[in-house]
Amino acid sequence: MGLTEIRKVCEVSLDIPAEEQSKIHNRWHPDIPFAGTIKNNETVKIECIDWTGGQIGNNDSADDMKNVDLTRIHYLSGPFEIETAEPGDVLLVEIMDVQPMESAPWGFTGVFDKNNGGGFLDEIYPTAAKAIWDFEGIYCTSRHIPHVKFPGLIHPGILGCAPSAEVLATWNKREGDLIAANKLDRIVAQEKVGREGARTIPGRPEHGGNCDIKNLSRGSKIYLPVHVSGAKFSVGDLHFSQGDGEISFCGAIEMAGVITINFKVMKNGIADLGMKSPLYLPGPVEPHYGPGRYLTFEGFSVDQHGKQHYMDVTVAYRQTILRCIEYLRRFGYSDYQVYLLLSCAPVQGHIAGIVDIPKFEIPLP
Amino acid sequence: MGLTEIRKVCEVSLDIPAEEQSKIHNRWHPDIPFAGTIKNNETVKIECIDWTGGQIGNNDSADDMKNVDLTRIHYLSGPFEIETAEPGDVLLVEIMDVQPMESAPWGFTGVFDKNNGGGFLDEIYPTAAKAIWDFEGIYCTSRHIPHVKFPGLIHPGILGCAPSAEVLATWNKREGDLIAANKLDRIVAQEKVGREGARTIPGRPEHGGNCDIKNLSRGSKIYLPVHVSGAKFSVGDLHFSQGDGEISFCGAIEMAGVITINFKVMKNGIADLGMKSPLYLPGPVEPHYGPGRYLTFEGFSVDQHGKQHYMDVTVAYRQTILRCIEYLRRFGYSDYQVYLLLSCAPVQGHIAGIVDIPKFEIPLP
Amino acid sequence: MGLTEIRKVCEVSLDIPAEEQSKIHNRWHPDIPFAGTIKNNETVKIECIDWTGGQIGNNDSADDMKNVDLTRIHYLSGPFEIETAEPGDVLLVEIMDVQPMESAPWGFTGVFDKNNGGGFLDEIYPTAAKAIWDFEGIYCTSRHIPHVKFPGLIHPGILGCAPSAEVLATWNKREGDLIAANKLDRIVAQEKVGREGARTIPGRPEHGGNCDIKNLSRGSKIYLPVHVSGAKFSVGDLHFSQGDGEISFCGAIEMAGVITINFKVMKNGIADLGMKSPLYLPGPVEPHYGPGRYLTFEGFSVDQHGKQHYMDVTVAYRQTILRCIEYLRRFGYSDYQVYLLLSCAPVQGHIAGIVDIPKFEIPLP
Amino acid sequence: MGLTEIRKVCEVSLDIPAEEQSKIHNRWHPDIPFAGTIKNNETVKIECIDWTGGQIGNNDSADDMKNVDLTRIHYLSGPFEIETAEPGDVLLVEIMDVQPMESAPWGFTGVFDKNNGGGFLDEIYPTAAKAIWDFEGIYCTSRHIPHVKFPGLIHPGILGCAPSAEVLATWNKREGDLIAANKLDRIVAQEKVGREGARTIPGRPEHGGNCDIKNLSRGSKIYLPVHVSGAKFSVGDLHFSQGDGEISFCGAIEMAGVITINFKVMKNGIADLGMKSPLYLPGPVEPHYGPGRYLTFEGFSVDQHGKQHYMDVTVAYRQTILRCIEYLRRFGYSDYQVYLLLSCAPVQGHIAGIVDIPKFEIPLP
Repeated sequence: MGLTEIRKVCEVSLDIPAEEQSKIHNRWHPDIPFAGTIKNNETVKIECIDWTGGQIGNNDSADDMKNVDLTRIHYLSGPFEIETAEPGDVLLVEIMDVQPMESAPWGFTGVFDKNNGGGFLDEIYPTAAKAIWDFEGIYCTSRHIPHVKFPGLIHPGILGCAPSAEVLATWNKREGDLIAANKLDRIVAQEKVGREGARTIPGRPEHGGNCDIKNLSRGSKIYLPVHVSGAKFSVGDLHFSQGDGEISFCGAIEMAGVITINFKVMKNGIADLGMKSPLYLPGPVEPHYGPGRYLTFEGFSVDQHGKQHYMDVTVAYRQTILRCIEYLRRFGYSDYQVYLLLSCAPVQGHIAGIVDIPKFEIPLP
Repeated sequence: MGLTEIRKVCEVSLDIPAEEQSKIHNRWHPDIPFAGTIKNNETVKIECIDWTGGQIGNNDSADDMKNVDLTRIHYLSGPFEIETAEPGDVLLVEIMDVQPMESAPWGFTGVFDKNNGGGFLDEIYPTAAKAIWDFEGIYCTSRHIPHVKFPGLIHPGILGCAPSAEVLATWNKREGDLIAANKLDRIVAQEKVGREGARTIPGRPEHGGNCDIKNLSRGSKIYLPVHVSGAKFSVGDLHFSQGDGEISFCGAIEMAGVITINFKVMKNGIADLGMKSPLYLPGPVEPHYGPGRYLTFEGFSVDQHGKQHYMDVTVAYRQTILRCIEYLRRFGYSDYQVYLLLSCAPVQGHIAGIVDIPKFEIPLP
Repeated sequence: MGLTEIRKVCEVSLDIPAEEQSKIHNRWHPDIPFAGTIKNNETVKIECIDWTGGQIGNNDSADDMKNVDLTRIHYLSGPFEIETAEPGDVLLVEIMDVQPMESAPWGFTGVFDKNNGGGFLDEIYPTAAKAIWDFEGIYCTSRHIPHVKFPGLIHPGILGCAPSAEVLATWNKREGDLIAANKLDRIVAQEKVGREGARTIPGRPEHGGNCDIKNLSRGSKIYLPVHVSGAKFSVGDLHFSQGDGEISFCGAIEMAGVITINFKVMKNGIADLGMKSPLYLPGPVEPHYGPGRYLTFEGFSVDQHGKQHYMDVTVAYRQTILRCIEYLRRFGYSDYQVYLLLSCAPVQGHIAGIVDIPKFEIPLP
Repeated sequence: MGLTEIRKVCEVSLDIPAEEQSKIHNRWHPDIPFAGTIKNNETVKIECIDWTGGQIGNNDSADDMKNVDLTRIHYLSGPFEIETAEPGDVLLVEIMDVQPMESAPWGFTGVFDKNNGGGFLDEIYPTAAKAIWDFEGIYCTSRHIPHVKFPGLIHPGILGCAPSAEVLATWNKREGDLIAANKLDRIVAQEKVGREGARTIPGRPEHGGNCDIKNLSRGSKIYLPVHVSGAKFSVGDLHFSQGDGEISFCGAIEMAGVITINFKVMKNGIADLGMKSPLYLPGPVEPHYGPGRYLTFEGFSVDQHGKQHYMDVTVAYRQTILRCIEYLRRFGYSDYQVYLLLSCAPVQGHIAGIVDIPKFEIPLP
């Protein structure tokens, strides 16, 4: 009769190193063994460790950010077998709830050191920094950014199904080409990995993965392509809140927590929906900020040295953020405080006119 | 006692060529003579011609889009003298109302020909196209995109104060460098102009200008830097509706209309606000679409040829739009219909994670 | 091709006494001759005089409120013949736009004298009072209630189709019984009318009429039962804004204006929809005030003399309003200013628990 | 450093009769001993049993509703001592979170038998009825009302501080007068109680108590008058969702759960705020239903027998609900299903015009 207590299919420990725990992983690969089995149409709870696998502490020093081991991040819970899911199906994931760990009602926002991870404004803000956030119900506050309090829109940063061997090969080829051509060092440690498994950064069109859509909170539905038998679904990187762009890289309020998900298999969904990439339908529950409560800044394709660029959204977005930083500096915050705040508060980053010479607005709630 | 009828400071004709009308212009220059005088704290009505100065007709052929004369577009009403405004002040512009012309309750959305204007997806959609929209109250419909009806969020695409001679010289130097370096042909006819006045494309950080922020409707406030005595304020490019990005270039629903504005001078506002670029505060009145009514697509830095790019928002945004087009194609619309629709309907273009490898979501209302 | 200027089917004069104008009336009766003809599916503009037919002036004295002639109020524009509408049909009315008269951008909120009209709190506030409101775009301000500014949600207070002779007979019988039984003198002058025609107060379930729903602004749809051939549709009592309850009786911001409506006839709609009373579907465009911006007061069935009443919503609502008045008094407003303000600002009056002992909340925006 | 796990100050058992548990009570009285102590500015978790103290089972029979013992309902958790709170202070209660019991993710909506509790429409619906709701995250569904699913806005129905002896005497005198005058039998068993303690029905202006405001969910703040030393705060009657009016009496989705609250004492707050009754400030997080998604029905002071009443909100509200029931009946639901649904779904009950002849609108989400 009716619903009984919801089954928990994954527990994580905050006291054991992530790499020693059996139900979490940080690569996408079809051969990672199942961490558990979930029925079609079942609702389960899944505990997730934080994005850094516990490397960051609830303290007042940014040394752990500075020295973070970037080969040991982005731990996901899973992969889970979803019964009846086969390649070609779509997995409908409905997010029923997301909560911080009862025993750890806190999270962090970080700036990586320019030489170890970096971020969107690392040329201007090269030093590691960190803010700890305390959670009370829907609200968060930080002793490192005083007088700020806002409700979170808790969501997972990463979710997806495992790639097939073919999809994985496509990824490795495609990203290898980019690395070879550019000698990039921000594709995190990719060239050092020496393995076939795909990193959880970046997100990829074939399965979603690292989507970082700040509105995927309670009540959201996500339609994910299935590439292997049993789906091999994984989830992690829970955020208490995030701003559009998550600009400081480790920019959301990263936390350990538990997510409650219902799974439904849509047979032959990829063909029926003509799906090339996941679809997302955010939930109806959100803080209400009317449009009249957003202060909007605008950026242009003119950089801080006065040079005009051509249709360069990245330049424009960076300028917009600098305008925000200047504005909030007037309230007594340091540049790093504002940089952290703009990463994790629910600011919006819109593209205004992509064709003229692009420019951005960042409204502040 | 109380308010009497609001003064109209500019009338335009829809039957006379734009270049023959005295109170409109299409360059930014400090020497354009005043088109009228407005008191500090006065509210006035200003009629505006459409973006193309009447070159586009309410008919079913796209030939006028294809052959549009791009040296005769972006006509603004003004410049108006705002009494007491001096360089260093900020002009607070409050938008009281925006309406289509009573005698012309229609507008258009266009795609330029790749060889005459182009647009964000002109490699894929090289041909000129056009949709006419009929207005009834807050709603618009188009005989060229059947079964679509939505409320507009009427706003001006361009508003700003004239540059000083110094600011204008900065613009011409900065943009000349870009043109010289790139031999661009999309900076519209810039190299042919042979004059000192600045085109109304692109927007510029020093004064705003072509901002194309889709939420600047009734009740919005804009804080504009003043660079010359009397401000020389101009406004134009009225849109019945626009999507974030205005992707097809002539992508909003362009219309002639009348805007009601209140002006207030904030003495010494540039220094007091530490203002480098305009600030925008959208009004509180908007169609209510809860977050649960947005279907979200995601784009990645992998282009349609399967090539991985590095942190390229433009590539990601283009991919997102292609996903939308594929989706809406399923409802029987042609690619050009969808391209036009995504330009003018109130879709949102958000930046999700600028640091990983950027990607976009375009929610659909 | 496309839409041309919208036809205006009714003009009113603000300078001629209402009873001398031909297209307005203030009784519901099937024999009032048509004021014009509107096609099925046509959109037209209809000018409306204000609720008092011009008796109230834009000045600083409440004498006109005190001495208002209540037999000469509630003038409606119409009745209009809607082609093809027959008894048993439903008339779908879509409100395209509502605007104040261009030549008269002002309105008023009034308190009637206890001996001439009265109101919800007339035992406490027995004296006539008046506030004049000036309109600028979506906002209104009043020199009589300083430092208050809010956006209006402009809507008609009265709209409906004429009763048939049978429906009218039912009304007169039903209301006559109440008057006979109670010797009421607030049913406005009803016993003096000495005519068959029904007053426009109260609203009535068979046709709607005086609905005073504050959200029926631009984009709203109303489904009205048709009782006579041609529908004989009338509309009037335009409000710039109203609070739930319109507590001071003449409590909205009353104004003259023009409403743009599209009419569609739904054949046999009354039976198909099983309709006993009109249905209303508010439009999607409204000021956004999130729930967190409403301060909520609560009233109980205990009156100001400390007496407990049993499930009496009227007592509870009156107490709630007294709590609001006490609260706003702290900001320096007089009791009459607050009484006027609560009548016309977009406050909400909700029923919390009708079964316990009812009580109310009035949130303030 | 930072927050640690939140302290739980009250646990309840779902397996032990309510009257045998030590930290719950169902009367308001200053002499009930403290159930625990909470620091000023502390955040704690408080478990609450359901409204009926566990009398209603998760099954398909309404016999438990029919035979419910109304002397054993409305159990509250508390009273808690809030350190430093003294008479004259205000207790600021901030609701951090409200959740169902992990072990009991279900609730119920009931109709009492006309002879044992009754309800707003008991003349029309005299029989006991019951719907069980299952909770999954923010959503609820019922096997007894198929095809309905909506997000809850979880909130407490009752919270307040204990009355002083003087306040309690006032209540007993005031309510005794009403009972004596009317021989009411719906004031639940009040005359049988034979004790000094006040029942938890009705709410009372001096302390709030049974407020049943459906929006008091996460993030809400309530300002409560303190009448005794230590405040003696109690809370209970948790609702997963409720409609305005809670029309079937036991009409919300009643559940056991846990509420997380932060308490702050405002010294001398009653005088400083001029407070006669509690103030409520709902939280910013809510499902977003734009105004265009509410279908609005209207009721009038004409009852189902065709009799006209004078300014009778209760009659009008009852008629509105009958219109809703008729409408939803068309979708195949029984009258009792609709009656239950309108009690617990987030419908709104607004007062439109209290002065004309009142009428109501009930929008449906």
